[in-house]
Amino acid sequence: MISPGVARFLAGATQQTPFLVIDLDVVEQRYREIRAAMPYAKPYFAVKATPEPAVIRRLVELGACFDVASPGEIDLCLEQGAAPECLSYGNTIKKEADIEYAYKLGVPMFAFDSLREVEKLAQAAPGASVFCRLLAGSADARWPLSDKFGCSTDFAVDLLQKAAKWDLRPYGVSFHVGSQQTNPDRWDASIAAAAKVFGELREIGVELEMVNIGGGYPARYVDDVPPIAEYGDKISAALDRWFGADRPVIVSEPGRSLTADAGVLRAQVVSVRRPFEGGDRWIYVDAGKFGGLAETEGESIIYRVLTSQTGPTKPVVLAGPTCDSLDILYRRTKHELPLALDVGDTVDFLSAGAYTTSYSSVGFNGFPPLPTYCIGDKR
Amino acid sequence: MISPGVARFLAGATQQTPFLVIDLDVVEQRYREIRAAMPYAKPYFAVKATPEPAVIRRLVELGACFDVASPGEIDLCLEQGAAPECLSYGNTIKKEADIEYAYKLGVPMFAFDSLREVEKLAQAAPGASVFCRLLAGSADARWPLSDKFGCSTDFAVDLLQKAAKWDLRPYGVSFHVGSQQTNPDRWDASIAAAAKVFGELREIGVELEMVNIGGGYPARYVDDVPPIAEYGDKISAALDRWFGADRPVIVSEPGRSLTADAGVLRAQVVSVRRPFEGGDRWIYVDAGKFGGLAETEGESIIYRVLTSQTGPTKPVVLAGPTCDSLDILYRRTKHELPLALDVGDTVDFLSAGAYTTSYSSVGFNGFPPLPTYCIGDKR
Repeated sequence: MISPGVARFLAGATQQTPFLVIDLDVVEQRYREIRAAMPYAKPYFAVKATPEPAVIRRLVELGACFDVASPGEIDLCLEQGAAPECLSYGNTIKKEADIEYAYKLGVPMFAFDSLREVEKLAQAAPGASVFCRLLAGSADARWPLSDKFGCSTDFAVDLLQKAAKWDLRPYGVSFHVGSQQTNPDRWDASIAAAAKVFGELREIGVELEMVNIGGGYPARYVDDVPPIAEYGDKISAALDRWFGADRPVIVSEPGRSLTADAGVLRAQVVSVRRPFEGGDRWIYVDAGKFGGLAETEGESIIYRVLTSQTGPTKPVVLAGPTCDSLDILYRRTKHELPLALDVGDTVDFLSAGAYTTSYSSVGFNGFPPLPTYCIGDKR
Repeated sequence: MISPGVARFLAGATQQTPFLVIDLDVVEQRYREIRAAMPYAKPYFAVKATPEPAVIRRLVELGACFDVASPGEIDLCLEQGAAPECLSYGNTIKKEADIEYAYKLGVPMFAFDSLREVEKLAQAAPGASVFCRLLAGSADARWPLSDKFGCSTDFAVDLLQKAAKWDLRPYGVSFHVGSQQTNPDRWDASIAAAAKVFGELREIGVELEMVNIGGGYPARYVDDVPPIAEYGDKISAALDRWFGADRPVIVSEPGRSLTADAGVLRAQVVSVRRPFEGGDRWIYVDAGKFGGLAETEGESIIYRVLTSQTGPTKPVVLAGPTCDSLDILYRRTKHELPLALDVGDTVDFLSAGAYTTSYSSVGFNGFPPLPTYCIGDKR
């Protein structure tokens, strides 16, 4: 689960912990795997997962496109060589000034899920291709999405019709079945909903062209997940089922699935508290919820953990270094760690390449943000 | 609830939202109030609440001391003119190198709650004053603390005795009854526990001198809270009850209570989603859980919200601007906001001066961290 490159880096690492190391060759490998599993889908990397310049650069070289959430992410992609026409502004919550910024730079494609957002797009991005995000269930996802995003199919038909009237190009629909989605059957219902919107709009003379099937393809944390090929096959079958021979342009937004397994977050044991009065054994490490491990919230994402010690193990509570009780990583989930584990020993969180550095706080408790080292960079 | 200075600042504000504005004169006023309410306690400002240079500077001028959690916070305080002997290293989770760093700079006082931590202190800070953090219940606290910190009284007696043996100065005990503690009676049980530790150590020839009663004094969010004077009186009565005439040196660690009410976080409406199919009305603002409003987690801290609109109101769901479903501020708690509220209108979160900027992410979704403007600075 640790790539040879990362293993070599960590073996010789003298950098102060905590830090993240990302192997760009693993990112490339995952990109090739998802292309092979879903040859019918154009991948737009969800930049928010790992907004690291070297990662973006490698994906540009591989011909990827990019799903961006803000002007900051647009700038990052363009600086790393992405063409503006390869960007999709997938955030449904955009300031009009930000829409205009993107539009003037040549970003061609924008998401919406409300009337207010269509109005802003018509105003600031005339003629742009727009797509409506549909509500989607995210059962079986470890990091679910909710009704914060997306609207009903009826509402979508109405909004896309309005978009057409207001000189936008009603390009398609999108949905997202939740991040770290462990069930490849979850795409079916949303593809059916997409087909319904396509059909209803066709009846009134509006031809949609694109379905954005979102992301959610899983990384390899503690639990086993189906191989990416199974996602590719099942999504393809669902597209056949609901669109038949008339398959639209398919866009996907892999994020976590490309970068998570490429990264290891190296931390160090800062303190150990032995059980008193039958309590837990606590291991405090120098990386915590405010220093990159935000997805441990609710113990949603359960990283594999390796330490520099061996020997008999016991379950522990794992906690971060800040004076905040929320900064407990795992309590219900008892990681079994060596009893010999002590101050100064290393603790590696595997598959930590996504949704870590970018979540890091600017300096909660005076601890600096998590630094990232990328290996395998050809430049 | 908005100071005249902040009102003037906001009336003329052209800065891009979101931002935080802090009135240093309100910080000063709150400092004077807590001094008056607890003349028997030396306040050590919990820097983590608001690690803002101008805030630290003002508190230095007022003669405050500082509770620090890391080398970063130590540097901040010293740079703003605090004397090292005024610092207390209150984090129970410290690297040995960090202890040594603080000790060499002249920081005299360190917390611990485990044997491993006492060993590190003995090694890296010989002769330093050390205090043991006791477990404390934090019922009635809006931001509770847990058994991540603190040990039993028996364990404390044992550890303080060891500290004495290892040439540290066993100075006292500390506890924390939870942040935004709404019940001033909650200190009593912990003061009783502190007295028990004092008594048991006296019997074996170890004289403690100090009780650190922690922080937790509340800010004025949506719910009414008792006045600070009531905390002062009840804590004083508890000290009389358990220590009698032998009252030890008392240290307190106000954080939130000094700075929260001094700040307003100004945001702006980015999008509005009208209810469809009987759903909620959603207001999306440009400040969210990853841009300073982290304490909305679990809807624990409920800020008062003012907008630039008036007229009839309806309950809304308030959400942040990122593509993350966790970035919903209030859902169970329905803020009643004007129906006229629309894109571009301002939304002010009151009493947001504490635990906001420092929690802000480095750039989740490509949004920059929350900037802070301090007013009333004499320099």
